[in-house]
Amino acid sequence: MYFASDNTAGIAPEILAAIGRANTGYALGYGNDDWTGRVERRFAEIFERGVAVFLVPTGTAANALALAHLAPPWGAVLCHAESHIATDECGAPEFFGGGTKLVGLRGEGSKISAATLRRALEDGQWSGPHHVTPSVLSLSQATECGTIYRAAETKELADIAHKHGVMVHVDGARLGNALARMNVSPAEATWKAGVDALSFGATKGGAMGAEAVIFFDHKRGADMQSRRKRGGALASKHRFIAAQMEAYLEGDLWLTLARHANAMADALGAGLTAAGCKPVWPVEANEVFAPVTRDADKRLKAAGAMYYPWPAPGLDIGSDKTLVRLVTSFQTTRDDVDRFLAIVRAR
Amino acid sequence: MYFASDNTAGIAPEILAAIGRANTGYALGYGNDDWTGRVERRFAEIFERGVAVFLVPTGTAANALALAHLAPPWGAVLCHAESHIATDECGAPEFFGGGTKLVGLRGEGSKISAATLRRALEDGQWSGPHHVTPSVLSLSQATECGTIYRAAETKELADIAHKHGVMVHVDGARLGNALARMNVSPAEATWKAGVDALSFGATKGGAMGAEAVIFFDHKRGADMQSRRKRGGALASKHRFIAAQMEAYLEGDLWLTLARHANAMADALGAGLTAAGCKPVWPVEANEVFAPVTRDADKRLKAAGAMYYPWPAPGLDIGSDKTLVRLVTSFQTTRDDVDRFLAIVRAR
Amino acid sequence: MYFASDNTAGIAPEILAAIGRANTGYALGYGNDDWTGRVERRFAEIFERGVAVFLVPTGTAANALALAHLAPPWGAVLCHAESHIATDECGAPEFFGGGTKLVGLRGEGSKISAATLRRALEDGQWSGPHHVTPSVLSLSQATECGTIYRAAETKELADIAHKHGVMVHVDGARLGNALARMNVSPAEATWKAGVDALSFGATKGGAMGAEAVIFFDHKRGADMQSRRKRGGALASKHRFIAAQMEAYLEGDLWLTLARHANAMADALGAGLTAAGCKPVWPVEANEVFAPVTRDADKRLKAAGAMYYPWPAPGLDIGSDKTLVRLVTSFQTTRDDVDRFLAIVRAR
Amino acid sequence: MYFASDNTAGIAPEILAAIGRANTGYALGYGNDDWTGRVERRFAEIFERGVAVFLVPTGTAANALALAHLAPPWGAVLCHAESHIATDECGAPEFFGGGTKLVGLRGEGSKISAATLRRALEDGQWSGPHHVTPSVLSLSQATECGTIYRAAETKELADIAHKHGVMVHVDGARLGNALARMNVSPAEATWKAGVDALSFGATKGGAMGAEAVIFFDHKRGADMQSRRKRGGALASKHRFIAAQMEAYLEGDLWLTLARHANAMADALGAGLTAAGCKPVWPVEANEVFAPVTRDADKRLKAAGAMYYPWPAPGLDIGSDKTLVRLVTSFQTTRDDVDRFLAIVRAR
Repeated sequence: MYFASDNTAGIAPEILAAIGRANTGYALGYGNDDWTGRVERRFAEIFERGVAVFLVPTGTAANALALAHLAPPWGAVLCHAESHIATDECGAPEFFGGGTKLVGLRGEGSKISAATLRRALEDGQWSGPHHVTPSVLSLSQATECGTIYRAAETKELADIAHKHGVMVHVDGARLGNALARMNVSPAEATWKAGVDALSFGATKGGAMGAEAVIFFDHKRGADMQSRRKRGGALASKHRFIAAQMEAYLEGDLWLTLARHANAMADALGAGLTAAGCKPVWPVEANEVFAPVTRDADKRLKAAGAMYYPWPAPGLDIGSDKTLVRLVTSFQTTRDDVDRFLAIVRAR
Repeated sequence: MYFASDNTAGIAPEILAAIGRANTGYALGYGNDDWTGRVERRFAEIFERGVAVFLVPTGTAANALALAHLAPPWGAVLCHAESHIATDECGAPEFFGGGTKLVGLRGEGSKISAATLRRALEDGQWSGPHHVTPSVLSLSQATECGTIYRAAETKELADIAHKHGVMVHVDGARLGNALARMNVSPAEATWKAGVDALSFGATKGGAMGAEAVIFFDHKRGADMQSRRKRGGALASKHRFIAAQMEAYLEGDLWLTLARHANAMADALGAGLTAAGCKPVWPVEANEVFAPVTRDADKRLKAAGAMYYPWPAPGLDIGSDKTLVRLVTSFQTTRDDVDRFLAIVRAR
Repeated sequence: MYFASDNTAGIAPEILAAIGRANTGYALGYGNDDWTGRVERRFAEIFERGVAVFLVPTGTAANALALAHLAPPWGAVLCHAESHIATDECGAPEFFGGGTKLVGLRGEGSKISAATLRRALEDGQWSGPHHVTPSVLSLSQATECGTIYRAAETKELADIAHKHGVMVHVDGARLGNALARMNVSPAEATWKAGVDALSFGATKGGAMGAEAVIFFDHKRGADMQSRRKRGGALASKHRFIAAQMEAYLEGDLWLTLARHANAMADALGAGLTAAGCKPVWPVEANEVFAPVTRDADKRLKAAGAMYYPWPAPGLDIGSDKTLVRLVTSFQTTRDDVDRFLAIVRAR
Repeated sequence: MYFASDNTAGIAPEILAAIGRANTGYALGYGNDDWTGRVERRFAEIFERGVAVFLVPTGTAANALALAHLAPPWGAVLCHAESHIATDECGAPEFFGGGTKLVGLRGEGSKISAATLRRALEDGQWSGPHHVTPSVLSLSQATECGTIYRAAETKELADIAHKHGVMVHVDGARLGNALARMNVSPAEATWKAGVDALSFGATKGGAMGAEAVIFFDHKRGADMQSRRKRGGALASKHRFIAAQMEAYLEGDLWLTLARHANAMADALGAGLTAAGCKPVWPVEANEVFAPVTRDADKRLKAAGAMYYPWPAPGLDIGSDKTLVRLVTSFQTTRDDVDRFLAIVRAR
């Protein structure tokens, strides 16, 4: 019953096998290998257009490099106040950006509404020389609360952003989970909805450690090679990151894995609802945030269930309950879910 | 005949197997796993003292993080003018250090001599507010020219450095190769010789992508957790980097692999010498720098041999020759070496 | 009727005269002059203890240098969300700090309450590797809303901060105005109340361009010479900045000038209150924030009065009114104040 | 006999008077004042074209801001190894540039020759991802050795730079001295010779503290307002920096002052030559580098003469002599020069 995070899972078998298959002969380092070339072409297929792709080993590097490439040092990155880039990357975007400022916006379920974005851009004190210049809107897809932006929502936000000269970045550490839920193509959910750049995550989805920075306008990627290298994020034996990504994309494995994780989250959500512990936010990806009684919490922990509490300021969940975050992954089993729910229901 | 670089090799079978074995069940991310704990203890054994260990995915991240942790932004890092940190990391140490200055010293075979270091520290214009403050001496072990610092040489340099309040870092991307050559323990070659911090490389030696920043004084590592995270270099599924490193260290695999690579370099060096193409620098690790005739160069290329030319300013190698760099690895075969030499000898 | 900002005033005559007097003969640059030595000693007298003093040409440099010296790059600076460092310095603290994060706290009248600080430090998600580490509490004295922290308030905040290992910085661009209001010594308002570092402003108070970074613990200032130089903030002909500061401190001119500015603000505040435009925040320094009718606003502008509107979100000032900010200075005349009030009262 | 540096001089009377004249009434801060507008227009006249002008308080800020605006963080700034930006600004260009690398070239008399530049650009290992990208050539005018680049020399260097996509910056801390020597217009010595950006110094020339960053292509200055502000280099009471610059430019005062300083240097040079202490580099600006006997050195010091020794590696000046640097300024008197020479001649 390991619901602590999707990064506690291992490597999907297909991806591990791909690493093994790539371990043959010699290949030039730093991305000058066949695997990398194939991944670039595969991304172009998936997104139905030429894209600039840069593979990196961590999601934090992907986000920080992407944002630094989009915003000048005096730029502001608008994001949700609870977003990963704002709270969980120890200031990496600020560091890579030369002191870029992240401006946290509020919104239910970790989502930024069009009204909030509009107000922030129109009412805020912006622009030089005294104020930072709004440069990037960064959306998390799925969000920290397991919710997602539908393509139309992304489009509305992107239109507002672009109107103000602000580019749109998506932190897609869990993009697969969001896409598996929506009935839209990767293109429709991203650049057709106005997204300019994307951190495409594979690690949480099932890879060992592989992420991609993607620019939909090829020109935006100019010099990213240099930025990635000096950011310490250019893998020496690059073929093995590329091989992971290739396997992840092959036959849409990424969506298959995400669909499983989402289904497990759905099952958790439905079971918890039935047990009187209705999730506080819609279960739209692979995360469930549910209030459980302190008793159930104790029983679960005693049984070895792994998960983290989640702050619930402003939420009325009852004083005898505690809000917990449950994250599923490609590795989560139906059996784990059922055992978890049985313990919640027991009394 | 792949002598382009040791990073063109794949993953040593023992290390690939370890990745596979680690792919079982769940483990907390970011280093809170058993593999990481074991690696830390193993490094303590190897170095015969408690050490602070931080695993990262790339050698550039290891160097840049280590140097940023040792030098203040107004510090100077003294290094060889041809060192990897000075010429091949696209300014990563400068970036991570907030604008630290790298001061390149000259020296035969990419080695810094005690006299050169002494002169630099004693005669240079140093210290604030106008001048940067010498803070770190960074030695490459083995060097860019495949030479090594004997323990006594390191000690002499470290003593000079310490006398001037300068700490000593070793870029050990090829530390295994250097150690495999010398008849000294890891402790004797490092902290007992005055080394304060070490980039311990495993990738070039046979891992997929695993490096360690090591501080011999545990306290020096304080806050490196934060610096690594914001540097984008904290792996999410950290157990898989740790598993690589564990396998690399297990039973001194690292030295065994390095010994093989060195032996292949020795064989190349001896064969080239016999063929009238004596290496220009002593073959002390896994790199050979030899002048070959332009004819031989053509024949080798025609036969598919992979290697890079090397600039030879100041070297008298004859106008009909070109200096080439040959790098061997754990994967290099005796057969490849023999074929290469046969082509050189042919006319 | 120039109430746009205190930086629209000129140079106090005593300070201009001091610049002229210093313009005799030669003096070593960069602070190695007699004026600078005298200023350092004078500050020690004023604060009743040895202090480390660094003169710089701008307030933004003072703040950014001080904060960068107190917080590591992975540190967080807690400050009011409306503070100058957070909103009006174009990201200077983030830049100088290598990507430090500023965390904006809310509070009436631009003041941070003890409860808010305690909650932020106790409930927030802090510390490495994922989160930034709270490192500095920065208080503006006087605040952006013209309010001040009494010594006991500063002490309470500093005690909370120190308990959490957080240092206390004061942005004293208008410290003179705050001190002139309170019946306490400079020492009591600063280090005796727990302040560790201070941006001591003279420019707004009457200098041409002179600010000081002051560390109450001399050791904290180590290496600031280098940081200041590489921050471009070390004046070449340093004696002229020192001469300004010397004159500003001589015979407590700074407090005399501040007292006048405060009195002018008091007069404006009283007059506006009498005219039914009661200031929304207590007039405690040299700034008045008052709602005036749109008619009065027009009449004032027509008469050439200079001032800026101020955002009034959450304030109930009536839909026919607009909130304006009026800043007085050493140069403000009673006549200007009276004319301004007469226009407000006219209908 | 104050020949330590030109920054040991005071303020030229015309400039001090201008500060006094500007101290009347109110003026908006941060450059929104009449003085600043006039300075911008005056620079356009002087350079015979529209230019983007940014006034700052220190020369280090001017250089660091200009270079950061021209070079990306992964860029290299090619400059003379002895140049002020490379050795005397404590890493300011690296800091402001986000870790830009300064590459020091060698050359007699602190001058870079066309051959050296060509070799550096053509033979060096450059460009991403592993190597930094040559982005800016920075020339000091006059140089650290008091020599100057004639317009044709600048043009030749700029042509080589531009051919390689490298922009040209001039550190003109002593531009007046260089121009006063050459029979060319400011335009001919700068943009007509290929200079893209200029640090125009007034402080050493006679101002209290006023420098300008000038971009000859107006578009290159975009966003410099923000960079200057976050660099702590935007003066609050900006009119007083502008007033200094206005007076400095008025009636070509800058050239008049520089001519005097140069004449004093010429007199020193001629006198020293006559005394057997021929300067080691041509006296082309306001600096003289001459070998004096250790006896003369002692006599001069005993008489209170102020100057610094200068390193003379590679120069054959005789073991009984010491190389000294003598800097003249607008304030230097003929009497000081004569006394100095008399002491040298005495025995």
